[in-house]
Amino acid sequence: MTEAKKSLALGNTRQVSVFAPASVGNVGVGFDVLGHALQGVGDTVTVERSDEPGVRVASITGIVTALPSDPAKNTAAAAVMAMVEGLGLEAGFDIHIHKGIPLGSGLGGSAASAAAAVFAINQMLKIPVQLIDLYPYALQGEMAASGSEHGDNVAASLLGGLTLVGAAGYRRPVQIPVPNRLRCVVVHPAIEIETRDSREALPKTFKRQTVVDQMANLSAFIAGCFQRDIDLIGASLKDLLVERGRAKTIPGFAKAKKAALEAGALGCSISGSGPSVFAWFQSESAAATGGEAMARVFADEGFETQTISSPVGSPGARALTLPPPGSGS
Amino acid sequence: MTEAKKSLALGNTRQVSVFAPASVGNVGVGFDVLGHALQGVGDTVTVERSDEPGVRVASITGIVTALPSDPAKNTAAAAVMAMVEGLGLEAGFDIHIHKGIPLGSGLGGSAASAAAAVFAINQMLKIPVQLIDLYPYALQGEMAASGSEHGDNVAASLLGGLTLVGAAGYRRPVQIPVPNRLRCVVVHPAIEIETRDSREALPKTFKRQTVVDQMANLSAFIAGCFQRDIDLIGASLKDLLVERGRAKTIPGFAKAKKAALEAGALGCSISGSGPSVFAWFQSESAAATGGEAMARVFADEGFETQTISSPVGSPGARALTLPPPGSGS
Repeated sequence: MTEAKKSLALGNTRQVSVFAPASVGNVGVGFDVLGHALQGVGDTVTVERSDEPGVRVASITGIVTALPSDPAKNTAAAAVMAMVEGLGLEAGFDIHIHKGIPLGSGLGGSAASAAAAVFAINQMLKIPVQLIDLYPYALQGEMAASGSEHGDNVAASLLGGLTLVGAAGYRRPVQIPVPNRLRCVVVHPAIEIETRDSREALPKTFKRQTVVDQMANLSAFIAGCFQRDIDLIGASLKDLLVERGRAKTIPGFAKAKKAALEAGALGCSISGSGPSVFAWFQSESAAATGGEAMARVFADEGFETQTISSPVGSPGARALTLPPPGSGS
Repeated sequence: MTEAKKSLALGNTRQVSVFAPASVGNVGVGFDVLGHALQGVGDTVTVERSDEPGVRVASITGIVTALPSDPAKNTAAAAVMAMVEGLGLEAGFDIHIHKGIPLGSGLGGSAASAAAAVFAINQMLKIPVQLIDLYPYALQGEMAASGSEHGDNVAASLLGGLTLVGAAGYRRPVQIPVPNRLRCVVVHPAIEIETRDSREALPKTFKRQTVVDQMANLSAFIAGCFQRDIDLIGASLKDLLVERGRAKTIPGFAKAKKAALEAGALGCSISGSGPSVFAWFQSESAAATGGEAMARVFADEGFETQTISSPVGSPGARALTLPPPGSGS
């Protein structure tokens, strides 16, 4: 029975490597509900099937290595454990995490590792589940790291593009179309902010009129995306809820935002809990100009910076080509 | 100069009658930002051009007559005054208001009178302005009545269908498409609630998680409308902000909502500040069954009820055919 189930679910693939991108959380106007993928920066997770039961963190390499190796506290391993349990998989897995996303950057690093890990397991199934059905498992991984159930980065990293999560009673993420030409520039100044601490500093309540204004912005933004209405997107890409509080932890934020808007940004705010600052632009050239201006502000504040320029509609997690058999890896 | 401006703007039409429909305010999920028109119930406003300058309320007839005749406090007249000033019209107007929408019903009566009035003036212009550009004038009329600047009913009554208003910095309403087959049933139990009083009873602040959940619902609802995704609309048509507080003023609300949902409603909540209760259904037959069940609840509570069944995508304000010349009117 156990052997039958095992052979039913898992195929012959013993090792899969998956890249999952960094992402912009909140996207300014959609605190805890919107996220979008970025191009070029991400985490790579390699999962090896093992005959030894259990889920293990086998290695952590790349630009961040000080991550929990306890599987219950590691986002990638916790996500795999959730998937193993959810699908009743009878196997063990060794997980190798190669980090490309800086820790505490506000670019969804823990979410990317979780998304990559469940995507990898899915590649090992005889009949893979739909991509969207991996979301709950990746979200459980994210919860292990942040202590809070917000899936804006997880959905974006897994599915790509602009995604909407969290509607009570409707757990599946919703993909929101965006005009092709929209570019996002993210500038990450080297200030480390812990998501958990940052959330504790958030307002516990919001005034009614603020909520109404934010709801109006968010719904206009969603409508603007569906209608490909750049003016409407630009008029509504604003955060009235958390930006003001979080900006205090990011020296230079106000100047960087001003620089972005002066360069023609449709909107500019903080990615996730920061310190990364993102802005949306209508063209690659405006994005380049705006990105340089934003980076200069943080350089003037004395921070090293990393700049990412990416289409807003960037792809999500994807399997990497395996090295050919016998290549020694 | 004055004479030139006058002749530039106004044509030869001396009298116009306009019907503007009742509307559902908030639509549950979009407090102060969403509204949609209803079919069959509305106010009719007749505007007569006069050689005597000024804007006057000439008559108030129909099911409500106890309305302010002071033009500054009457929604129709205040809206006309705003339009006269905004467009620099050099003429006087006498306004006849025929009310079809009950006072304090939560069905946007003051908004309908304002929408009808500005639509009528527009018909008298040599070059009418775009419908959407009438919104700010009608909103000023609504403000005269409610003391608060919320345009959810005004936009719906003026433009028809499902509308979104109020994004800071973007004052033009946005029309949201809805699946054709969606029906709305409104049951109005004869309890009078003053909008102004009802707003004072609202929570002044909301908890962060409540706001996030409501934002997730609202954005999923907007996405669901654009995608014609009935499941997503049904999963997100919910109000976590004001329904619980306002429900206390509507005896039988919880039972009526339960009856609507049992009859297959996608969602059920309070229209505007109540006491009208609305529900969305997937078909006319489900709407009929649900409407009867909802009305029965309020009848059992001892209230007279009025039921309106309407497509969600109902038309907005429209000019009525004038009586032929010399017919004596």
